[in-house]
Amino acid sequence: MGSRREGDAAGARSGGRISRVTVTPVAFRDPPLLNVVGVHQPYVLRAIIQVRTDAGLVGLGETYADQAHLGRLDAVAAALPGLDVFDAHGLRRVVVETLGSSTGGAGASFGGMLEVSSAVDTVAAPFEVALLDLQGKALGRPVSDLLGGAVRERVPYSAYLFYKWAGHPGQDEDSWGEGVTPEQMVAQARRMVDDYGFTAIKLKGGVFEPRHEIETVEALAAAFPGHALRIDPNGAWTVETSIQVAHRLAPVLEYLEDPTPGIDGMAAVARHTDLPLATNMCVIAFEHLKPAVAVDAVQVVLSDHHLWGGLRRSALLGGICETFGMGLSMHSNSHLGVSLAAMTHLAAATPNLTYACDTHYPWKTEDVVRAGALEFRDGSVAVPTGPGLGVELDEDALAGLHEQYVRCGQRGREDTAYMRTVVPGFTPNTARW
Amino acid sequence: MGSRREGDAAGARSGGRISRVTVTPVAFRDPPLLNVVGVHQPYVLRAIIQVRTDAGLVGLGETYADQAHLGRLDAVAAALPGLDVFDAHGLRRVVVETLGSSTGGAGASFGGMLEVSSAVDTVAAPFEVALLDLQGKALGRPVSDLLGGAVRERVPYSAYLFYKWAGHPGQDEDSWGEGVTPEQMVAQARRMVDDYGFTAIKLKGGVFEPRHEIETVEALAAAFPGHALRIDPNGAWTVETSIQVAHRLAPVLEYLEDPTPGIDGMAAVARHTDLPLATNMCVIAFEHLKPAVAVDAVQVVLSDHHLWGGLRRSALLGGICETFGMGLSMHSNSHLGVSLAAMTHLAAATPNLTYACDTHYPWKTEDVVRAGALEFRDGSVAVPTGPGLGVELDEDALAGLHEQYVRCGQRGREDTAYMRTVVPGFTPNTARW
Repeated sequence: MGSRREGDAAGARSGGRISRVTVTPVAFRDPPLLNVVGVHQPYVLRAIIQVRTDAGLVGLGETYADQAHLGRLDAVAAALPGLDVFDAHGLRRVVVETLGSSTGGAGASFGGMLEVSSAVDTVAAPFEVALLDLQGKALGRPVSDLLGGAVRERVPYSAYLFYKWAGHPGQDEDSWGEGVTPEQMVAQARRMVDDYGFTAIKLKGGVFEPRHEIETVEALAAAFPGHALRIDPNGAWTVETSIQVAHRLAPVLEYLEDPTPGIDGMAAVARHTDLPLATNMCVIAFEHLKPAVAVDAVQVVLSDHHLWGGLRRSALLGGICETFGMGLSMHSNSHLGVSLAAMTHLAAATPNLTYACDTHYPWKTEDVVRAGALEFRDGSVAVPTGPGLGVELDEDALAGLHEQYVRCGQRGREDTAYMRTVVPGFTPNTARW
Repeated sequence: MGSRREGDAAGARSGGRISRVTVTPVAFRDPPLLNVVGVHQPYVLRAIIQVRTDAGLVGLGETYADQAHLGRLDAVAAALPGLDVFDAHGLRRVVVETLGSSTGGAGASFGGMLEVSSAVDTVAAPFEVALLDLQGKALGRPVSDLLGGAVRERVPYSAYLFYKWAGHPGQDEDSWGEGVTPEQMVAQARRMVDDYGFTAIKLKGGVFEPRHEIETVEALAAAFPGHALRIDPNGAWTVETSIQVAHRLAPVLEYLEDPTPGIDGMAAVARHTDLPLATNMCVIAFEHLKPAVAVDAVQVVLSDHHLWGGLRRSALLGGICETFGMGLSMHSNSHLGVSLAAMTHLAAATPNLTYACDTHYPWKTEDVVRAGALEFRDGSVAVPTGPGLGVELDEDALAGLHEQYVRCGQRGREDTAYMRTVVPGFTPNTARW
């Protein structure tokens, strides 16, 4: 047993306390991508969180930036100084106390597609990521180590196809051009696969009548015979249509995402198909898990650390999926490099996240992090091995995108209102077909 | 936004790799405590794990020590050198690979009361605790900080009463004397409450016919009117008896633990009472959660990091209980100070662990950790704030209890066989009444 002295290399207390937190809204250009509720506006709004400590470190987080959310982020930011960087439970307590009873209306950043009953997880998430970035920096360890260690060196992502207009109204055609016909969508996929090496392809549907979207999927299947395929119409279909599409596409899909709205609707579809149903709409918070499990509504849950309260809470979601026999994939909204880093560490350290993760990354042309840390090769991103998230803020780029936020005039996500400027009277396609 | 240099206080890579692991079986004296399967033998067997790193640190763990378990611990110990101390997923991989298909028979340490279908969680647990101890020591942080931070400064425990013989056969009466009549059990509780300040009391039942045990509980309720009471007959009763006892004792119990065996049996009882049913028998592994939730079999799960794969996996169990609307308490087997420290950190960092935890601590007279780190006051233990678990091994005591292990001749837990040396033909009382 020996009696070697313990503590030879024991460390001084690592980490320190929060001294200052800044929340910087930014806007970055986005193509006119179509979805069930309308079309993406010319800019995506995001908020970049910087958490500084008395030890001189800075931790990064990224989240949505609609007005209501920004107000909540600012209030929490003001209340955080003094908090220990390891005190994740203390962070949640601060968020709960700061929000008080005003926790509704947390769905503003989802363009009308989602509503979350409490904003606590959504507001806490970017700060939790920043704390993990700080912990990792203090320890000289990547964030994945704080989540139990990376089980894979590279994280696979999927090509995320969108039907789209050729360009924003009144603007030139963008480099992707129109995406409407199956041939155009195959070309869009080809460019993404050529540029990034993706081996999984997701089609955002809910835009055209199901027959057209089925033809698009079948064209993709023919053009990319070895690729894993998914379609996500964001609840555009009735239960009956969903069952018909499931039967038709079962041979070519790895899963069918949110064909119809609601836990009961999904359960009704699930009873008639062996094709796994996935969701980022009817199970988007911990409160939805028990009712969804009770009726076997979904077979794959798409995690999203922005929605689920950060990386540790997303790991909890992963453990719940494993325990209750559900698969695990990962959802993406439009995001920048801070979030891509966080998603990559989380996915690397989640053993049962076996599907390629979604990402909007190929659609963006601007970023706030220095280039080079996160690169796609063979459809995957290498997990950063340096301290923390492994990405560094480009202060000039941050200032530029903040300036763009100030100038652009957008203060929320309004896909439906933007669509109505082109198609007056447009109403979301939810359960339309 | 400023451009203060990042990384001013960024740390060198903390932690290091495992260089050597030792597994030391120990035996400590235990009184003749009665339960549903028989009686505690003169010694409790435990294994103390020491994980050493190339940085000169030592991390501690504690677990069961029956022969089959010891063999598995030794095999894993031999395979661990080289593992990064932050690589919890790597630890599980090593355990899975080391055990191969030989994962059955993991219930030997439970005296016949429990069977776990896979030994992976049970074998991984003490090493996971030792890794967290090492991480905490490297960071100068208590283990509770690695679990999200302590939400309470002190962790409440309960007085754990046992019916008992006055002494082991052939030995002198021990200091507790006989514990059979309600009056004797009130005296036993009085001593524990006086010595430790407990405000919750648990009676281990399943020993006498229900009427006698009900009278004991009612005597305790009369003698300790402000205390939270529980009884745990370890499945000694039929469903019908359980329902009757639940009705009778509902006014004085905070929960009723394992009145009858099995998920279906518990669910049948739960349908007829509002008294919460707790378990450490029918839900003791992740695989039991889904079937238990499906029939609302239990309202409180007793966590136990020794069984559930360590502290992080126990935190996952806590998150599952919160998500699915179940309460959370904590189970105890006979244990030493390393486990008490681990239990205390876990309970401190688990917000929804709102019941006083079980502990066998008052029954033991020997330990392997230096005195003073963990003391009961007002029924609770202060969460250690030093690095790691906050307990230090007493090498002389460890050597002494190992010597006692070698000498005592016990190599497993055999409550039933030991009982038969006194009561020939004894069979466990499972569902007897």
